[in-house]
Amino acid sequence: MNDQNIALQQEIPSPLTAEALPPSCWSFKVTIRHGHCDPAGIVYTPKFFDLFNHAIEGWFIEVLGIDYYHVIGERRTGLGYVTASADFFAPCMMGNKLEIFVRVVRIGSKSYTLMLHAMKEGREALRGHFTTVTTSLDHHKSIVIPADIKAAIVAYSGKWCQ
Amino acid sequence: MNDQNIALQQEIPSPLTAEALPPSCWSFKVTIRHGHCDPAGIVYTPKFFDLFNHAIEGWFIEVLGIDYYHVIGERRTGLGYVTASADFFAPCMMGNKLEIFVRVVRIGSKSYTLMLHAMKEGREALRGHFTTVTTSLDHHKSIVIPADIKAAIVAYSGKWCQ
Amino acid sequence: MNDQNIALQQEIPSPLTAEALPPSCWSFKVTIRHGHCDPAGIVYTPKFFDLFNHAIEGWFIEVLGIDYYHVIGERRTGLGYVTASADFFAPCMMGNKLEIFVRVVRIGSKSYTLMLHAMKEGREALRGHFTTVTTSLDHHKSIVIPADIKAAIVAYSGKWCQ
Amino acid sequence: MNDQNIALQQEIPSPLTAEALPPSCWSFKVTIRHGHCDPAGIVYTPKFFDLFNHAIEGWFIEVLGIDYYHVIGERRTGLGYVTASADFFAPCMMGNKLEIFVRVVRIGSKSYTLMLHAMKEGREALRGHFTTVTTSLDHHKSIVIPADIKAAIVAYSGKWCQ
Repeated sequence: MNDQNIALQQEIPSPLTAEALPPSCWSFKVTIRHGHCDPAGIVYTPKFFDLFNHAIEGWFIEVLGIDYYHVIGERRTGLGYVTASADFFAPCMMGNKLEIFVRVVRIGSKSYTLMLHAMKEGREALRGHFTTVTTSLDHHKSIVIPADIKAAIVAYSGKWCQ
Repeated sequence: MNDQNIALQQEIPSPLTAEALPPSCWSFKVTIRHGHCDPAGIVYTPKFFDLFNHAIEGWFIEVLGIDYYHVIGERRTGLGYVTASADFFAPCMMGNKLEIFVRVVRIGSKSYTLMLHAMKEGREALRGHFTTVTTSLDHHKSIVIPADIKAAIVAYSGKWCQ
Repeated sequence: MNDQNIALQQEIPSPLTAEALPPSCWSFKVTIRHGHCDPAGIVYTPKFFDLFNHAIEGWFIEVLGIDYYHVIGERRTGLGYVTASADFFAPCMMGNKLEIFVRVVRIGSKSYTLMLHAMKEGREALRGHFTTVTTSLDHHKSIVIPADIKAAIVAYSGKWCQ
Repeated sequence: MNDQNIALQQEIPSPLTAEALPPSCWSFKVTIRHGHCDPAGIVYTPKFFDLFNHAIEGWFIEVLGIDYYHVIGERRTGLGYVTASADFFAPCMMGNKLEIFVRVVRIGSKSYTLMLHAMKEGREALRGHFTTVTTSLDHHKSIVIPADIKAAIVAYSGKWCQ
């Protein structure tokens, strides 16, 4: 393994300001609860991944018009991640209000990548990247993105988030 | 933002086999519980970040000989992340036994990066990267890595995990 | 220990219908997410206690007009539980919508007890009891309920939930 | 609803000392992690229910000799709760070591009740009660406790924990 590549890969991006976001990107609002935070007084890192997932579920339901729970449940289509990552710019404490903007940065045949910008008081506090590979939950192998999901992601991507 | 860079950054690495791991890297054993898994039958992604953190806490206490909880508590030194990421190679189900190997890939003056290889039945199931910036929990600004922590990480890094 | 008492204590109450609830009790709406559920397809029990706590936080902020996070944070007043319990009447799956009604069943000098009725499709799916003892977070001993909190609970209790 | 009954039901029991425990009760050891705690510095209540469940899973596997995950998974037998409760006697902070003793207090035809005594430094810090009703995960209705599980619980109950 080439540790120089690892170092490069981990160069920290710069936080965005609200103005830098695509104008009509959909967002999800959430308040940091004390159960999200640890004795250091700031959000326990795994909880941010739960909050990002919450935003993605909301985006499916409200924006794509597709019932995330039905996809995983009755349709037995997995929406799991092959990569999940976050960069943290500013600490978040209980009571803080975050607005998480969802952008589509790539759509392939069997996978898509979302970038989530979590804004706090007009400035990006953290940013998530999630690459989903759609799978069959019967055998846990990748499958082509179901047509309705792909069409909805493409539509969102084209209309709101260029 | 350059989406081509994002795509490159997200190229998925290949899973390691047990033989490819440094010979005497410390590891942490954990069994996947049903409370870690979701109705898709596989681990809910945020839970993996909790398991990785559990491994890091164990590594501090057992290997570095430093009480992680005392550092965050009485010493009021934050060990939070500026980046946290994971690549997923194979699904993990309840009852699966993981062995998480902890490697140090970088030590700076105020930050260090760990790579965690979670092996399942001799093959890497997922891999985590965590870059910690040491902070003062009084003002949440970065501080130089405390000398005892740095010395212990350097010692581990040199002895076990080249 | 008298196990007969234990058995009596654990007699299961009967689920309420919507009509049996006090007419203008405040409620909190929440959708069960897949991250709340386990591979059995139903909510993992500890998550229900998190959902109940979420309801209580909302009730503080929206109904009592008191910032729960400020109480625990700046005011360093603990709102922890001496008893927390739940009775489960019907399984809850992802996508289910719950409406949690908050009732005050007792107010003492240093403690108060809430009963939470979680309704699903017009019928109680589970019920929580939580007895809070207010404490100082400096020494973790009980203190008299702060006057503003007590007044607000008494007012709610009298007006809406007899 | 009779609120006096509620009040009686919630009379707080007294914490046990180590000597009061049945002599050869099985126990599960766990260290409180910072991810279990909230900004008040003490364990976030829902996490205690997760720790109790962890103890119960360990008890199944180590004492009953029955694979909890296999029961919920391949056997599709639910081990969910109809009541779950806890009484809290002393605050628990990160780094605290708990030893959770598992007692059987009742075995019926379709349900059983466990009492869990979580000891900290020789004194009970909290106590859980959990009544499981065995169910079929195909229709979520109660079923008779499977014979192997019942026999193992009876054997434990008779031998170790009278």
